[in-house]
Amino acid sequence: MNPINNFSGLTTALNALNIHKHIVAICASDPHTQYAVQRAVREGFASFTLIGNKDFLKPYESELNLIKDKIEIIDIKSADEAAWAAVRMIRAGKADVLMKGIINTDNLLHIILDRKEGLMLHDHVLSHVAVVKIPTYNKMLFVSDAAVIPKPSYSQFIAEINYAIGICSRFGIDKPRISLLHCVEKVNSKFPYTMDYKELIAKANRGEFGDVIMDGPLDLSISCSKEAANIKRVESPINGEADILIFPNIESGNIFYKSVALFAKAEMAGTLQGTACPVIVTSRGDSKETKYYSLAMACLTSQKYEINN
Amino acid sequence: MNPINNFSGLTTALNALNIHKHIVAICASDPHTQYAVQRAVREGFASFTLIGNKDFLKPYESELNLIKDKIEIIDIKSADEAAWAAVRMIRAGKADVLMKGIINTDNLLHIILDRKEGLMLHDHVLSHVAVVKIPTYNKMLFVSDAAVIPKPSYSQFIAEINYAIGICSRFGIDKPRISLLHCVEKVNSKFPYTMDYKELIAKANRGEFGDVIMDGPLDLSISCSKEAANIKRVESPINGEADILIFPNIESGNIFYKSVALFAKAEMAGTLQGTACPVIVTSRGDSKETKYYSLAMACLTSQKYEINN
Repeated sequence: MNPINNFSGLTTALNALNIHKHIVAICASDPHTQYAVQRAVREGFASFTLIGNKDFLKPYESELNLIKDKIEIIDIKSADEAAWAAVRMIRAGKADVLMKGIINTDNLLHIILDRKEGLMLHDHVLSHVAVVKIPTYNKMLFVSDAAVIPKPSYSQFIAEINYAIGICSRFGIDKPRISLLHCVEKVNSKFPYTMDYKELIAKANRGEFGDVIMDGPLDLSISCSKEAANIKRVESPINGEADILIFPNIESGNIFYKSVALFAKAEMAGTLQGTACPVIVTSRGDSKETKYYSLAMACLTSQKYEINN
Repeated sequence: MNPINNFSGLTTALNALNIHKHIVAICASDPHTQYAVQRAVREGFASFTLIGNKDFLKPYESELNLIKDKIEIIDIKSADEAAWAAVRMIRAGKADVLMKGIINTDNLLHIILDRKEGLMLHDHVLSHVAVVKIPTYNKMLFVSDAAVIPKPSYSQFIAEINYAIGICSRFGIDKPRISLLHCVEKVNSKFPYTMDYKELIAKANRGEFGDVIMDGPLDLSISCSKEAANIKRVESPINGEADILIFPNIESGNIFYKSVALFAKAEMAGTLQGTACPVIVTSRGDSKETKYYSLAMACLTSQKYEINN
């Protein structure tokens, strides 16, 4: 498989791989979620169960009618009960991907994290991987964590890296270049995560992350620009061609994600990781394209997991 | 004075205000620093003392000869001794701005921070303010702190904000909109700086920062995009038109600075604050334009301070 280099390549890959997934969407009654749902059906890789207050779907009745063989509607008035019903569908193996519409994210996360009836895989860390295509960078960037873990511990870094590697692999990137970000290139005990980086690289060198290239601490310029690396005379196996960016904390990840969206016109997608299936929790601030791309990303990367709890 | 909206406006303003400053540059023998020095002289707002190993200036001899009435050269072979001589010039009031060429930044900072013979103003905090012009944002952004303070305390936030306000004022921005950045809009004790933000806003509301508009915690999108604020239904007096961005930590500031430089083709400048004069510590990774703009910014913002230590 050739690497997927942009988001139109993502839809092409889904069709080439003949992927068909069933998605359960909670309260899918906002225009952006409807755009994503309808486009995914038309592109041919998805069918849906829409759970929520059926009355709120009235504005989309005629459009949904055109694709009715791919859409099942379950009428549940309460958003929380709709979320519980969706989670039960995933647990029963009746859907491959969970998507959030107009429901409070904190409430949904609370349900997902429920120890007995939620969606967390045993002993897994909840995290988030975003995929970003910046017009001025010639490949996709896989970014963690811009949304969930405030300040990753060593074991949380390991989880983030493994999730990102797994997603890269589904995007056809066999030997990802993983940059562990900081402001400068020096390990410094004042920034404890740079000590973790040293351990992570030792682990990578032992082959424990599989076939990857990992380096850090590196700054963003050196991670993503050969020219910057040359000027600063920093030798790194990343070679200014990072595939995966691991951020030291949520503020830097989140501000990176939003700065490239806002100022560099990047296209983006993202899903939760550590759950029994990819979960799409895009917010109102995200574009309708981001919702669709996140859906496509989730369908490409979803696998069947058993919850052992 | 009309606000300066971009970097060409900065040179225009220096000429319109008839500003002439004397800069002492340490080891100014790299091409980027020479570009900045020579251009500043040609633009008419600067004269220079170049302190360092005179032999290293040979490649620029003929160019420097053309502007020799604005250039004094002092031959000191050791970079550290050159730095000490430059600092003594500033302390003696014989120069308005200090600029770093090819000298290790840590060594220079060590000298600047020297309690008896350095450049720190009494009871001041060393910080950094960058000015950023992003082509896709219609004003300049004043950013702190992308370079010096790892994790600002409450009093360090106050210092950063006051420095940024002071620089805005010199750029003709009389009532700056100051956004205190976070990932979301909620004060949360898990992120202690959001508690500081609450106090800072109370302080601003008491008028203690002068005539400013301050809000936070806000995410980057809402700070810089009216559309994002509308979609997320967040009402903020910032109105998507932030002038000043205050970052919660150095990682988020640094990664923002580098992401807009690399991916959004932003132009930038920056100087240290808290010192007896603006200090330019641009690194090898910065472009020659950034070095020139930083010099122009320093000349616009320099004032005479007495060191009382």
